[in-house]
Amino acid sequence: MTTVRSTLPDDARKVACEALQDTLVDLLGLSLVGKQAHWNIVGPRFRSIHLQLDEVVTAARDFADTVAERSAALGVPPDGRPETVAKAFTLPSPEEGWVRDSDAVQVMVEALQEAVGRLRERIDATEKADPVTQDLLIAITAELEKQRWMFDAENFPR
Amino acid sequence: MTTVRSTLPDDARKVACEALQDTLVDLLGLSLVGKQAHWNIVGPRFRSIHLQLDEVVTAARDFADTVAERSAALGVPPDGRPETVAKAFTLPSPEEGWVRDSDAVQVMVEALQEAVGRLRERIDATEKADPVTQDLLIAITAELEKQRWMFDAENFPR
Amino acid sequence: MTTVRSTLPDDARKVACEALQDTLVDLLGLSLVGKQAHWNIVGPRFRSIHLQLDEVVTAARDFADTVAERSAALGVPPDGRPETVAKAFTLPSPEEGWVRDSDAVQVMVEALQEAVGRLRERIDATEKADPVTQDLLIAITAELEKQRWMFDAENFPR
Amino acid sequence: MTTVRSTLPDDARKVACEALQDTLVDLLGLSLVGKQAHWNIVGPRFRSIHLQLDEVVTAARDFADTVAERSAALGVPPDGRPETVAKAFTLPSPEEGWVRDSDAVQVMVEALQEAVGRLRERIDATEKADPVTQDLLIAITAELEKQRWMFDAENFPR
Amino acid sequence: MTTVRSTLPDDARKVACEALQDTLVDLLGLSLVGKQAHWNIVGPRFRSIHLQLDEVVTAARDFADTVAERSAALGVPPDGRPETVAKAFTLPSPEEGWVRDSDAVQVMVEALQEAVGRLRERIDATEKADPVTQDLLIAITAELEKQRWMFDAENFPR
Amino acid sequence: MTTVRSTLPDDARKVACEALQDTLVDLLGLSLVGKQAHWNIVGPRFRSIHLQLDEVVTAARDFADTVAERSAALGVPPDGRPETVAKAFTLPSPEEGWVRDSDAVQVMVEALQEAVGRLRERIDATEKADPVTQDLLIAITAELEKQRWMFDAENFPR
Amino acid sequence: MTTVRSTLPDDARKVACEALQDTLVDLLGLSLVGKQAHWNIVGPRFRSIHLQLDEVVTAARDFADTVAERSAALGVPPDGRPETVAKAFTLPSPEEGWVRDSDAVQVMVEALQEAVGRLRERIDATEKADPVTQDLLIAITAELEKQRWMFDAENFPR
Amino acid sequence: MTTVRSTLPDDARKVACEALQDTLVDLLGLSLVGKQAHWNIVGPRFRSIHLQLDEVVTAARDFADTVAERSAALGVPPDGRPETVAKAFTLPSPEEGWVRDSDAVQVMVEALQEAVGRLRERIDATEKADPVTQDLLIAITAELEKQRWMFDAENFPR
Amino acid sequence: MTTVRSTLPDDARKVACEALQDTLVDLLGLSLVGKQAHWNIVGPRFRSIHLQLDEVVTAARDFADTVAERSAALGVPPDGRPETVAKAFTLPSPEEGWVRDSDAVQVMVEALQEAVGRLRERIDATEKADPVTQDLLIAITAELEKQRWMFDAENFPR
Amino acid sequence: MTTVRSTLPDDARKVACEALQDTLVDLLGLSLVGKQAHWNIVGPRFRSIHLQLDEVVTAARDFADTVAERSAALGVPPDGRPETVAKAFTLPSPEEGWVRDSDAVQVMVEALQEAVGRLRERIDATEKADPVTQDLLIAITAELEKQRWMFDAENFPR
Amino acid sequence: MTTVRSTLPDDARKVACEALQDTLVDLLGLSLVGKQAHWNIVGPRFRSIHLQLDEVVTAARDFADTVAERSAALGVPPDGRPETVAKAFTLPSPEEGWVRDSDAVQVMVEALQEAVGRLRERIDATEKADPVTQDLLIAITAELEKQRWMFDAENFPR
Amino acid sequence: MTTVRSTLPDDARKVACEALQDTLVDLLGLSLVGKQAHWNIVGPRFRSIHLQLDEVVTAARDFADTVAERSAALGVPPDGRPETVAKAFTLPSPEEGWVRDSDAVQVMVEALQEAVGRLRERIDATEKADPVTQDLLIAITAELEKQRWMFDAENFPR
Repeated sequence: MTTVRSTLPDDARKVACEALQDTLVDLLGLSLVGKQAHWNIVGPRFRSIHLQLDEVVTAARDFADTVAERSAALGVPPDGRPETVAKAFTLPSPEEGWVRDSDAVQVMVEALQEAVGRLRERIDATEKADPVTQDLLIAITAELEKQRWMFDAENFPR
Repeated sequence: MTTVRSTLPDDARKVACEALQDTLVDLLGLSLVGKQAHWNIVGPRFRSIHLQLDEVVTAARDFADTVAERSAALGVPPDGRPETVAKAFTLPSPEEGWVRDSDAVQVMVEALQEAVGRLRERIDATEKADPVTQDLLIAITAELEKQRWMFDAENFPR
Repeated sequence: MTTVRSTLPDDARKVACEALQDTLVDLLGLSLVGKQAHWNIVGPRFRSIHLQLDEVVTAARDFADTVAERSAALGVPPDGRPETVAKAFTLPSPEEGWVRDSDAVQVMVEALQEAVGRLRERIDATEKADPVTQDLLIAITAELEKQRWMFDAENFPR
Repeated sequence: MTTVRSTLPDDARKVACEALQDTLVDLLGLSLVGKQAHWNIVGPRFRSIHLQLDEVVTAARDFADTVAERSAALGVPPDGRPETVAKAFTLPSPEEGWVRDSDAVQVMVEALQEAVGRLRERIDATEKADPVTQDLLIAITAELEKQRWMFDAENFPR
Repeated sequence: MTTVRSTLPDDARKVACEALQDTLVDLLGLSLVGKQAHWNIVGPRFRSIHLQLDEVVTAARDFADTVAERSAALGVPPDGRPETVAKAFTLPSPEEGWVRDSDAVQVMVEALQEAVGRLRERIDATEKADPVTQDLLIAITAELEKQRWMFDAENFPR
Repeated sequence: MTTVRSTLPDDARKVACEALQDTLVDLLGLSLVGKQAHWNIVGPRFRSIHLQLDEVVTAARDFADTVAERSAALGVPPDGRPETVAKAFTLPSPEEGWVRDSDAVQVMVEALQEAVGRLRERIDATEKADPVTQDLLIAITAELEKQRWMFDAENFPR
Repeated sequence: MTTVRSTLPDDARKVACEALQDTLVDLLGLSLVGKQAHWNIVGPRFRSIHLQLDEVVTAARDFADTVAERSAALGVPPDGRPETVAKAFTLPSPEEGWVRDSDAVQVMVEALQEAVGRLRERIDATEKADPVTQDLLIAITAELEKQRWMFDAENFPR
Repeated sequence: MTTVRSTLPDDARKVACEALQDTLVDLLGLSLVGKQAHWNIVGPRFRSIHLQLDEVVTAARDFADTVAERSAALGVPPDGRPETVAKAFTLPSPEEGWVRDSDAVQVMVEALQEAVGRLRERIDATEKADPVTQDLLIAITAELEKQRWMFDAENFPR
Repeated sequence: MTTVRSTLPDDARKVACEALQDTLVDLLGLSLVGKQAHWNIVGPRFRSIHLQLDEVVTAARDFADTVAERSAALGVPPDGRPETVAKAFTLPSPEEGWVRDSDAVQVMVEALQEAVGRLRERIDATEKADPVTQDLLIAITAELEKQRWMFDAENFPR
Repeated sequence: MTTVRSTLPDDARKVACEALQDTLVDLLGLSLVGKQAHWNIVGPRFRSIHLQLDEVVTAARDFADTVAERSAALGVPPDGRPETVAKAFTLPSPEEGWVRDSDAVQVMVEALQEAVGRLRERIDATEKADPVTQDLLIAITAELEKQRWMFDAENFPR
Repeated sequence: MTTVRSTLPDDARKVACEALQDTLVDLLGLSLVGKQAHWNIVGPRFRSIHLQLDEVVTAARDFADTVAERSAALGVPPDGRPETVAKAFTLPSPEEGWVRDSDAVQVMVEALQEAVGRLRERIDATEKADPVTQDLLIAITAELEKQRWMFDAENFPR
Repeated sequence: MTTVRSTLPDDARKVACEALQDTLVDLLGLSLVGKQAHWNIVGPRFRSIHLQLDEVVTAARDFADTVAERSAALGVPPDGRPETVAKAFTLPSPEEGWVRDSDAVQVMVEALQEAVGRLRERIDATEKADPVTQDLLIAITAELEKQRWMFDAENFPR
């Protein structure tokens, strides 16, 4: 069913929308594991990290919405259903149960580090295909790198 | 690891926290499939239902947070990780790809109807165990029943 | 015409929706007679009671909306048309024309006292039928009892 | 009981306050039947018209308050009690029970059309008697004509 | 010095701007005597009338600004200097020193009553000369009549 | 295609809607040339006039919306398309390219002066046909006369 | 002096108002000792716990107001005078002088744990006597249990 | 008259400012025809599309302002006068008179599709000349593509 | 335990912090007895004084916080525990049970009068020791003298 | 009539309240002549000074209210009636009619300079009598000196 | 160039403005080194101290603005240029590069302690010269002493 | 001390962070000299330029924060200490003492022109190294070019 038409030629659309779908999964996954840590964290930095994790969740949710709507705008239906996210999400994430504050910080540094690495590949990949999509990926990277730094600075001395 | 102590005796805590964990899965799942429909809906009621779906998502996210924090407050770590949600979520949800507006309305009626049915069982189950948890489940039911009615009224004539 | 389906079995729905319809009439009536007193009050406490009456009207309007939408959500169309309200409304209310401030206070004490008495009966009646509806009636009672006290305290010495 | 003195001579006050009392009944009636339709509407335009009806209700309530207080300011106590509204209100209004969206739109076009027609007669009637009252009636007409147009445009093709 | 040009012919401008200048004096005077009463009131209704008087002051100040700017817009410089106001202001006003609450109410009823009477004459006078100025005077009258009623209703039984 | 019905008889509607259509063109034109001056102004009063021009644009846009919707409410479709505005707009406006601040002030005085002159004719023309439309034109005139004065006062000594 | 009448029979009122009076003392006490800790806390978590303690104080103050007004609404004057609070307050509280952050956390866990235990008894006690009062006690318990969890999670490893 | 100096060399400035001027015309034109459709739309989706069109108008106006000010900042006076817009604007737009909702949706899809196509050419053209201008054009494209998708999704099945 | 160091020499710190501790007790006591009166007041001025009392409570709470934090900032831990307040608080306060409005006014006049008298002594005492503390005591006195006047004016004729 | 009692001995009260009454006249006078200049200013700095004058008026009005209420709080009724202000106000002020922008600036510099000089004398006079009143006069001086500087800086080169 | 005239005699102005200039340098320096620490802090208290440092920066910036404008108001141009600040600023400040959280806390305690010591000398110095300037320095001291305490309390055990 | 890890390879990080450090110095310097001009400006455009300069300061401060945090996020500690800024800042800036308004405008044009020139070099330099940093530099350039234009337009005729 060809429904929403695209403003991009087929090749460019394919490149851009694959980058967007992969980013969507990372962001929805981050929003879920960020909340998981927000709820289960324990330790003397509970309040401080509990609040900081919610900023990651808010950023991840807002960008996920923009990313999914951009894919739709380019004519490709995004997929953010639970089973899709569960299958495709591969970033580090906290274990089941209570999480020590230092472990929560560590896992967020790693998850964000890996998410940023993957975003930078997609920034390269979309440069020719669609500078508008690339610009969105750049904005997401800027935010996630900032969040990564904050957890990394909190994580000192390792 | 016994971490956060409970204000409830063991039996009551078990009943309350199972009800909360099951509700958490339903709400997180609803927030994901609500967004899925929000992004992929097509048809002459696009804008109207697109906006209404976001109200379900907002309600589901806010209640999920309250439900998970209540479980933690009772001493049981909640589980909202992607794989947990994917495995345990069983409410009706939209197919992959574009969704006609009438189909989106229909699937939300069904998903909310089933969610409400399960909540009413948990309201009964928690009455003795923990009236505080029961009161939260009642509030969630009131909101989901209201949302269900709005989609059902929109869905006329079936 | 079976239009909006219910999440309650027939018996429970009947009990709940009768309680809601009766409450709707009381609240719409209170909002009208509250405004009547708000406009027609005279006397040295004019400004003070004029403002307090508007708080009753606001509460009555907001709860009326919630009550009517809950009835719809349970599958029974609420009835708030002028002729229905006029016929079914039986709470004490001010006479036509200017109203002395002390009389306005007295009539509000009586109207709210009676409204609360009827609400408490409905709280009992809906306990089994629908705890969600009961919870709403409890919230309305809390507010009207607070308003009643304020007029009663104002009314001293009688 | 001569209570609040007037700034108008007797004849002018009589003309102005009759126009205000009749307008008060129309507005209170509109606010009730607007809510009635808001609660009972069904059909594919449910959400859109449900929201639009609340704008009529808000406008009707706000203008009713201004109209009633203006009558009081001119020395004539306004009458907005349930039985008065029920007896004097003659604008078209929805039947009991669920209302199809197209029927709700149609009845609002007719009710507003008739309300505007009556307001325009009162604008003429009050021109000499009280230009301040006339100015208020003009403002109400402007708003109701705008609301009427919106429902009429929605109602196409008839 | 012909400075700001007018959009009105000379005769009309003269009529409109005299009405505006006289209204300006009344409003600035009201704002000063309203504050005087606000500061000096004593008695069991202190707080209630103290707050109500500030609403008169706010209205008088806002309208004074609009009236003066309208005169300037019509090419006639308004005059609101202390000596002008003192010389031209003739409305009833409180005596020096503490003022009983009932006296404050009474003097506001009289001052507003007289202010309204003069405004109604200016509404007639400006109808032909400038309907834009007339419309402003109508709006001021509506507000002052409302304030007058509130003090009059408070003043019962006289 | 007879689409939106009118609440006015044909003759009155014709008079009112011609006045509204002409006003719409003036206001849309003013909003465009006001922005043109806002962007191209140079000189020592750049910031001050740059900001003031935006107030004219905001007023012109808001009134244009009200005027067009009033025409639709009276059953006549308004026309604000680029070619219509370009063809019918005749008020003084700035030349292409940079504009000195004193020239910008001067052209706004002239444009507003002429706009007001035309509005005053339409106020007369619509008095009998539709006092509701007349009241809107009076409000627009009040605002444009105020804006005109401000530029004129700024323009001293000429 | 029989002053404010009750909407409850004597027995029920007695049960409800004793529960409310005891809760009032606990909440006022908590608000005072929460502030005491807020001011005197020292240690590396100073800022984090300093802020968290103010959230307890705010919650305690707001609920104290609701609880006291509910008692008044039921016809029994609440008692929150300094000597009453000092005599009746028995929850754990910080010593005089500076308080280490870990000690402040520990004392809040214990105070809230005990407060919750007492509230749960009152929830049982008021179920029959007054479901409206019970509902308020449930809401307070939900909030205090959440606050208790946050301090307990902060307090790990003990 | 060389007035505002540029931070770009002549060639780059010429490329950038032609792209900006062409974009300005498209955006001002879109804001006018968006309003035209907003006012004249009729049909069962009136309210929904009426509101959506205003979002296009707001976006077009805001971006037009940024685009014009960027041109001025680069030393080239922008031209947004009515005659310039009328002459240079070539995007599809609604006919005179009432517009069916489906036609309004269709014309917006086409106008936005064409606007986006032209913006993408300018993104390429300005890449070397001025990455700052390019970045602005990318932002506009992102927004217009989102708007285009929303109308296209609404337009299903075509 | 020497914990927070002071910026004042020992003598000055002792003078300043005794003044602050005594003021803290007065303010916390006032906030409790102000609420006590707020809840228990009865009589025809119920609403007016009920609201005014809350302004005293808000001021007392805010200043108490500033006073206590200033003491901590000067290196002396403040003491605001229930038993400390109960023991040290000596201002007039309402009896147990319902309080007539005139009695509530009277007791507030006396309590504030006495509080002001004590503050003025502390203003003298701290002038040399710490002008920063003195400045805070001056600000508190200004507010309490204003509150005292308002109750005193309300209390006329005595 | 001894109405509101004082917290100051007679001598101190006399000194403080004379300073307050004189300041009240200066501030009310400034608020009137500031508005006079605000309305009548002409010249190329019209908008800039027109706005700045309103900041003086706002400051003067707010301080006048605080000053008058402080006098009442000290037991002396303040006098701000038109005739009192006109008789006692001696600061430089603009002539009748249009005022050139440079003249408006000049007169404000002089009026504020003189007002500040008088305030500084009152600061000295009240130091012993009432440090609370002195503190208020210091705050007024700070604001008026800031306003004076802004006009003086605007007035360069003289 | 004698530009802005003073309201103080020469000697007093010299004393006041030297105190202000020295304070300006301290505050601008604090705002820069506060930001330096805000950006470079690492360690387990990263988030908590990162946020607290921004409160110091905000306070320092706001007071710097007030201090500089007060100097200008007294006729002496303030100097806050980079080279001036660098040369004159002598408070302790963080080293280049990453800063451990405990070191950041320690350096802020020392910097604020020293800043307060210098401010207290200036409070003495300006008492005779200008009580208005003194009052500003007192307000700054109150805030910096509060900030100092918060870092000192955080710094426990040292 | 390797503290915060980078998401960039060493070469790219070096290029990006040098560009960021240089930009940080320019922005902090601009914020200081912008305030210097804000405080010391004199002349007939005082108020207008005084306000405009604060917009530059706000923009410079906000971007400085983002730039410094981005450097930290890339693993290089930013340096914004007073001595660093003083040593490295080379943009044109105002002299010591009062500044004529025309001179202030001129120096801001020059400072912003030079800042933009340097930013454009850094945009080129970072394109390969880090598109995320480049995107931030582009945003800063857009804002500073807009500010530059506004002062340049104000500066006409030169």
